[in-house]
Amino acid sequence: MYAGSPIRPEEVLYKTDHSLIDQSMHARMGATTLNGDGFGFGWYDGSRPPGLFRGTGPAWSNRNLREISEHLETGLFFAHIRASTGSAVQETNCHPFRYRNWLWMHNGLIKDFPRIKRELALAVEPELFPHMEGTTDSEMMFYLALSLGLRSDPPKAVARMVGHVERVAAEHGIADPVQMTVATSDGARVWAFRYSTQRKSRSLFYSREIDALRALYPENPTFQRLSEETRIIVSEPLGDLPGAWQEAPESAYGIVQPGEDRIAAFEPEPV
Amino acid sequence: MYAGSPIRPEEVLYKTDHSLIDQSMHARMGATTLNGDGFGFGWYDGSRPPGLFRGTGPAWSNRNLREISEHLETGLFFAHIRASTGSAVQETNCHPFRYRNWLWMHNGLIKDFPRIKRELALAVEPELFPHMEGTTDSEMMFYLALSLGLRSDPPKAVARMVGHVERVAAEHGIADPVQMTVATSDGARVWAFRYSTQRKSRSLFYSREIDALRALYPENPTFQRLSEETRIIVSEPLGDLPGAWQEAPESAYGIVQPGEDRIAAFEPEPV
Amino acid sequence: MYAGSPIRPEEVLYKTDHSLIDQSMHARMGATTLNGDGFGFGWYDGSRPPGLFRGTGPAWSNRNLREISEHLETGLFFAHIRASTGSAVQETNCHPFRYRNWLWMHNGLIKDFPRIKRELALAVEPELFPHMEGTTDSEMMFYLALSLGLRSDPPKAVARMVGHVERVAAEHGIADPVQMTVATSDGARVWAFRYSTQRKSRSLFYSREIDALRALYPENPTFQRLSEETRIIVSEPLGDLPGAWQEAPESAYGIVQPGEDRIAAFEPEPV
Amino acid sequence: MYAGSPIRPEEVLYKTDHSLIDQSMHARMGATTLNGDGFGFGWYDGSRPPGLFRGTGPAWSNRNLREISEHLETGLFFAHIRASTGSAVQETNCHPFRYRNWLWMHNGLIKDFPRIKRELALAVEPELFPHMEGTTDSEMMFYLALSLGLRSDPPKAVARMVGHVERVAAEHGIADPVQMTVATSDGARVWAFRYSTQRKSRSLFYSREIDALRALYPENPTFQRLSEETRIIVSEPLGDLPGAWQEAPESAYGIVQPGEDRIAAFEPEPV
Repeated sequence: MYAGSPIRPEEVLYKTDHSLIDQSMHARMGATTLNGDGFGFGWYDGSRPPGLFRGTGPAWSNRNLREISEHLETGLFFAHIRASTGSAVQETNCHPFRYRNWLWMHNGLIKDFPRIKRELALAVEPELFPHMEGTTDSEMMFYLALSLGLRSDPPKAVARMVGHVERVAAEHGIADPVQMTVATSDGARVWAFRYSTQRKSRSLFYSREIDALRALYPENPTFQRLSEETRIIVSEPLGDLPGAWQEAPESAYGIVQPGEDRIAAFEPEPV
Repeated sequence: MYAGSPIRPEEVLYKTDHSLIDQSMHARMGATTLNGDGFGFGWYDGSRPPGLFRGTGPAWSNRNLREISEHLETGLFFAHIRASTGSAVQETNCHPFRYRNWLWMHNGLIKDFPRIKRELALAVEPELFPHMEGTTDSEMMFYLALSLGLRSDPPKAVARMVGHVERVAAEHGIADPVQMTVATSDGARVWAFRYSTQRKSRSLFYSREIDALRALYPENPTFQRLSEETRIIVSEPLGDLPGAWQEAPESAYGIVQPGEDRIAAFEPEPV
Repeated sequence: MYAGSPIRPEEVLYKTDHSLIDQSMHARMGATTLNGDGFGFGWYDGSRPPGLFRGTGPAWSNRNLREISEHLETGLFFAHIRASTGSAVQETNCHPFRYRNWLWMHNGLIKDFPRIKRELALAVEPELFPHMEGTTDSEMMFYLALSLGLRSDPPKAVARMVGHVERVAAEHGIADPVQMTVATSDGARVWAFRYSTQRKSRSLFYSREIDALRALYPENPTFQRLSEETRIIVSEPLGDLPGAWQEAPESAYGIVQPGEDRIAAFEPEPV
Repeated sequence: MYAGSPIRPEEVLYKTDHSLIDQSMHARMGATTLNGDGFGFGWYDGSRPPGLFRGTGPAWSNRNLREISEHLETGLFFAHIRASTGSAVQETNCHPFRYRNWLWMHNGLIKDFPRIKRELALAVEPELFPHMEGTTDSEMMFYLALSLGLRSDPPKAVARMVGHVERVAAEHGIADPVQMTVATSDGARVWAFRYSTQRKSRSLFYSREIDALRALYPENPTFQRLSEETRIIVSEPLGDLPGAWQEAPESAYGIVQPGEDRIAAFEPEPV
């Protein structure tokens, strides 16, 4: 996730060492080293719903993604590379998911999702139900969060979503059901979550102050012209810059917004 | 749908005038003249679940479909070409759908499906629910029929499925909700249905006795060697043979099986 | 091809009656009524090579094309829908083709192309040869034109390209080898050609003065704000506006450029 | 490459430890660890040209490949997983390549291929030239070998093909141009080559006598029923059986055929 001064996304997606595209071929962290089962790119550019470009092949060989990332300019975008844990490789299963002005992407899983999928689906608002187009746990989490108040209070809605999933899982005898890093946005602010039932969450990193990045990358012209408020949030650090990235604490969420960002503890909330 | 003497499917899919592949480009009947939004091919070949080959592009330019249809031999297969009425073009939305040894394909629609999708989904058996992978009304009809007894009494289960859809639609103020021709098989027998709430159903044709076909096509070697029991059921006649095809009556279903086939009236059944 | 005031391409591609996307499903002119074998979209947006987005499925169901056309703004773009005449359905066979700042698209064919493909390929400049990625006659015409001077004098280079193809074809006993409408651009000007050896060329239309269009479409806000110099060139008229479109004469080419456009006779030139 | 008793290909492609599909995700040998840029499967089943099924996504998530490999039975098949070294990801660039009854697949590369592609293309027989559909060095090697006598004397034709490539490369100042393991078949016999100009060729393994395999895998029912003559040739050993595989010597070729197989030295031959 990138928020800040408008840039051509290729700068972040391709032109950095250990870029997102590199990571799709050789992830160093995470459950899978390989993320070749589709990708997605969502970008905000003004008053409309965000744009969404998704594909089913590997990101690294998709020429259209490369073209688009070179020709767009955007100050807020999401990019995701997918390693399927079993559900079909199809565009509707690729992140980010979109509902009106909201984007959502997720790394992780709901354990034994097929066993509780139906019960979780019942908690999705009837009006939202037909908008679900894929079959992933990640999309279900999005629509549950939307149903539980995402549009008015994102941290509370995500806490309730997790609380609900954990309760349903417990009723089915599923231990440690939730593993997630999540990013979501309404186009103005971005919320990022790091949580797992077991408190052993996947990694999540955010970029330090741009001043620090500039000092670290004195020769990178892109970093020199980015505003103070520019932030990048990633599963794995881009590049190889010691000091450029800070790991998000366990069980926490952060808000990227105009003015001061903030970070707070995350605790699931019973529904 | 083809049932009878084992053949290479290309004979029916490609090598006939006005073949299925031709029809994907220029349908003469039906709501759309163009069926370029994916295709599917399911075939039985013995003791296993049937094979399934589906793709998202047009059938007419898919080389893999052509290859497979030339190299397989099967005595029972389903083939379908899709014209999306809005849901995503992805393999999991392509017919035929498969559950264990059952195949199902459908032409038609449930009117205003998104409005009643959730309520219909609730009537799917919990164990079956996570097996639905797509977003079409057609797949939902299949899983409803499975939930309502397809495996033990197909005509009754389909009657109950339609009865249920019509009741839910009525509760939502949707008139004339069901339009369908359906074919389904367990690998031994095939059931084909023609029905619409309005009693203005899409066309469905079945081939006459093979003797008649042989007489009509004296120069077609394939027809000469097919057994007496060979049957083809299609939305539109293949070829241009007057007398080769018989239209199924309105509100009816037929059974293709070893021994005598039969045809009977179809009436939805309240659940 | 659109050249003029920057717009979102969806206005032309989707939001007009009988739009390009409609035409992909139901062309009224041309050799095929159906163009479902891939599509392409190329756009200029400043100093870089133009962007290029191509896909292999039908344009009408491609969500990514829709997204991009809604989120880009460009004052010069090419869009193409393809009906394969036999060569593989793959992105590298989709128009427009690009070489550096040049785009090229073609409707028509070189008759018996496989018979003279090798000899034509030999006339492509060695440096350009490895840039050809597909297998179509259209791409070959582009690289021949590039080899014969496209970058310095487009009308002359296209005349020489056609002259060369006609000569090679004649040597192989192929009558009436060329059928083409071609559009090409360097990002500043657009050249459009209508020609066939037989002088029975496929249709090509260009939009009349924007004043005329505004008068014809008083309620279309897009047309109201377009500049005087805006031009659209198409195989078939968009919309249903009597008077909005003028057919290009047989054996002619036109130049769309800042200032006055021009039109002139086209005559192949022996190489 | 598998030659021997008819089996369902899934036995080799999926059901072995470190199977070909596993290798597509985590190769242990070879230049790339990841082979996600398409795949191909070619099989012989009697009197016709072999079947060919190719796809552009990763093999590991392709459901159609899985289906086909479960439902076909064949005594001679080729399977390939591709890691693009730059050329487009499209079916026409996927191995095996086919010409009539011949299949060909290749691992390796021609160094600086774009620089000599045109000159190599000129050596392809004019009648064969239009059959090349892709843009890879591998397909070019196939058509050069066909042009230089593959159909009458495969080892000699491949030696001449390599000799020609090495000569053309030398004229362009390209050192150590050829790196290859190649397998080709006419449906009756299989020829496998291991060679590189530098004599540091990629690995190639063939299975030992089936007796040895049976002794090593006493619990694998597939191996118990395979005939004496069954052979598998692979880039990397399947499974984890010490003793099951023998590495082909450097600069050598082998012939798998009814009766005794043979292995011989390979030496490029000047054309």
